[in-house]
Amino acid sequence: MKYNKLIDHTILKQDATPDQIVKLCEEAKQFDFMSVCVNPAYVPLAARLLKDSDVRVCTVIGFPLGMNLTKTKVEEAILTVKEGATEVDMVINVGQLKAGNDAYIKEEIRAIKQAVGKDIVLKVILETCLLTNEEIVRACKAAKAAGADFVKTSTGFSTGGATVEAVKLMRETVGPNIGVKASGGVRTHEDLLKMVEAGANRIGTSSGAKII
Amino acid sequence: MKYNKLIDHTILKQDATPDQIVKLCEEAKQFDFMSVCVNPAYVPLAARLLKDSDVRVCTVIGFPLGMNLTKTKVEEAILTVKEGATEVDMVINVGQLKAGNDAYIKEEIRAIKQAVGKDIVLKVILETCLLTNEEIVRACKAAKAAGADFVKTSTGFSTGGATVEAVKLMRETVGPNIGVKASGGVRTHEDLLKMVEAGANRIGTSSGAKII
Repeated sequence: MKYNKLIDHTILKQDATPDQIVKLCEEAKQFDFMSVCVNPAYVPLAARLLKDSDVRVCTVIGFPLGMNLTKTKVEEAILTVKEGATEVDMVINVGQLKAGNDAYIKEEIRAIKQAVGKDIVLKVILETCLLTNEEIVRACKAAKAAGADFVKTSTGFSTGGATVEAVKLMRETVGPNIGVKASGGVRTHEDLLKMVEAGANRIGTSSGAKII
Repeated sequence: MKYNKLIDHTILKQDATPDQIVKLCEEAKQFDFMSVCVNPAYVPLAARLLKDSDVRVCTVIGFPLGMNLTKTKVEEAILTVKEGATEVDMVINVGQLKAGNDAYIKEEIRAIKQAVGKDIVLKVILETCLLTNEEIVRACKAAKAAGADFVKTSTGFSTGGATVEAVKLMRETVGPNIGVKASGGVRTHEDLLKMVEAGANRIGTSSGAKII
């Protein structure tokens, strides 16, 4: 198995400088990772650095709280795709999920998927550390029904990251035909193997170079 | 001194439900706070609940990382104002500040100020816990030059909140003619007094009811 192509090589911290993004992109080319995952402000830089490579540009939408208006998330997705992103990881509105408003979650995901189109990979971040198992299942169903390409565990900015239990539950819920991305706290080769065994087929980590 | 009018009554957590926003708005009316500060997705609700009151609707732009494209921040500001916000608290791009690109910071703030217009209060969040004193001074100068109405210490989502030292430095740098908002970790009446003494004229807190 080519572990390198499982990895979204990630820097999302607030104080990351352009120099750190350059280094991230160089490592991603060296190890032939699936993508670099950067904040929207760095999409133009990453797209320029990676244009003659196989490494994709992934970015994050409504990140990390997901509590923007739907229209803002849609506009941010369109703009980052225009700037060169081919994968977009959006955060759901956790408050609406908690309030039982699954239709809101589904319609928001659908609006973004329709805006970016079928060639762009849309991942839906649930922030599982804030959710009950029942809420994780409901969010997965909404994401699948809305046409998401992946469900994803975590932003890495909340109270916890990916767990084997959450990844298993997500894979059971969405079935084999869409992806599951484990992110947040995946730092070693052993962590990666556990997540893959639980059902993940994509890993978000800032420790990709070390893992490989 | 009317302490109540110093307070932006705040809920920005990711899993806040509509019910919690209703309660926040009721308290804000009861105590006659300056504003409620909510995530953009809750601006329409808060604006509806507060339309016959003196309490303003404040929201956050590019929050909490500030690492969106400038165009996204501008669009989010315009949209939230259209939905009823009259105060917008934007987060600077800390990465560009760290890289010495003060012009980027200034132009981004200016673009948002021009988009929302002079009647909307624009606060510029520095995230002081991530900055050196020299960076705080540079960010304050950029904000003032760009026409910001306030500089603000913190998002409440990073490694630390408002400190007396940071507030003093910000007030010294911007002078008396624009505002300084202390936010993050202000939980008691004593905290509030310390911040006011250091130069703050606005306080962001989720403990406003208790403080008053």
